[in-house]
Amino acid sequence: MGRRPGGLSTRKEIVDAARGIFASSGYRGATVRAIADAAGVDPALIHHYFGSKEKLFAATLEFPVHAPDRLLAVLSGPREGLGERLTRAYLELWEDPATHGQMVIAVRASLSSDEAMARVRPTIVDMLSRAPASDVPGPDAQTRFALAMAHLVGVAAVRHISKVPPLRDLGFEELIARTAPAVQLHLTEGCEPGERRRTS
Amino acid sequence: MGRRPGGLSTRKEIVDAARGIFASSGYRGATVRAIADAAGVDPALIHHYFGSKEKLFAATLEFPVHAPDRLLAVLSGPREGLGERLTRAYLELWEDPATHGQMVIAVRASLSSDEAMARVRPTIVDMLSRAPASDVPGPDAQTRFALAMAHLVGVAAVRHISKVPPLRDLGFEELIARTAPAVQLHLTEGCEPGERRRTS
Repeated sequence: MGRRPGGLSTRKEIVDAARGIFASSGYRGATVRAIADAAGVDPALIHHYFGSKEKLFAATLEFPVHAPDRLLAVLSGPREGLGERLTRAYLELWEDPATHGQMVIAVRASLSSDEAMARVRPTIVDMLSRAPASDVPGPDAQTRFALAMAHLVGVAAVRHISKVPPLRDLGFEELIARTAPAVQLHLTEGCEPGERRRTS
Repeated sequence: MGRRPGGLSTRKEIVDAARGIFASSGYRGATVRAIADAAGVDPALIHHYFGSKEKLFAATLEFPVHAPDRLLAVLSGPREGLGERLTRAYLELWEDPATHGQMVIAVRASLSSDEAMARVRPTIVDMLSRAPASDVPGPDAQTRFALAMAHLVGVAAVRHISKVPPLRDLGFEELIARTAPAVQLHLTEGCEPGERRRTS
């Protein structure tokens, strides 16, 4: 493939190519040259559009999904279904081909590199800080939400990145049915209406 | 530092240095030269002892901890305490300075690179396959153990690698108290003696 003309679609093609390379190679392993090759453009064009690998990485994360908003949205509503709604909303982001690559990149790159994590952390911290405004009960809603999310990230990483059986091979509905009760426990255990949760 | 004489202690120093570099740079980001510099040896000596970066990586994982044995050991005993025993045994491996670095490497490197994961996966699969011989109940003990471990890996990764507050800052005993009930749920929920657990 030769050099492509510039424009919005070229920018999008670079971001798509970068998403593939970051997903397969991790943040450190990915080179601007490999991304340029995959996108069929000159590396100089990537520097022209994005300035640096770090900024290109940020663009791969920001493009299509607004995962935090989707997750916070399901935290409103009846308390009984909180665990299942959050489990389904998060794990669907991994199953859906339109968002799968971005989830792989976000987790793989941020766990493999402190620089990448530094870019992702503010988004996570901001998301967690919004839990007290949701229907997650208790003065410790933020900690509960963080534990629920850590659980879900672990399940997704083992299934989709480590690809360890039997989690790799479980049907999606069985995965939800087995994961949601523990997530529900994190979100609501010991929280009766008006009650403060004990902490050790 | 100049070249060191060979011998067992040099081998151990290379492995220790490699553990630090793999932990900070990930599997792909780590170079044999950076490890040689950190160990104060010539890169040729690393090739002499280990043959390849992949084999050196394997050595960093195999050296001191026998994490699978420690985790399987606590799966024997009274059913009530299974969740807390597993949670404590696993998260202690991350808190203990003697094993912390190895846990960081194993998770960081295996999630950041398919080659590294290919080296780690058989150990994990073997560990999970031994669950039915433990006191984890039910014909699906392996799936239960896998979900419990995925949960714990997520909690440890968010606390120790992503370093996201509030999980980063939680006291160890509070972390155990908040995590163990969900792990217990995975290991034993719906499993009365002799009962088969429903699956969807």
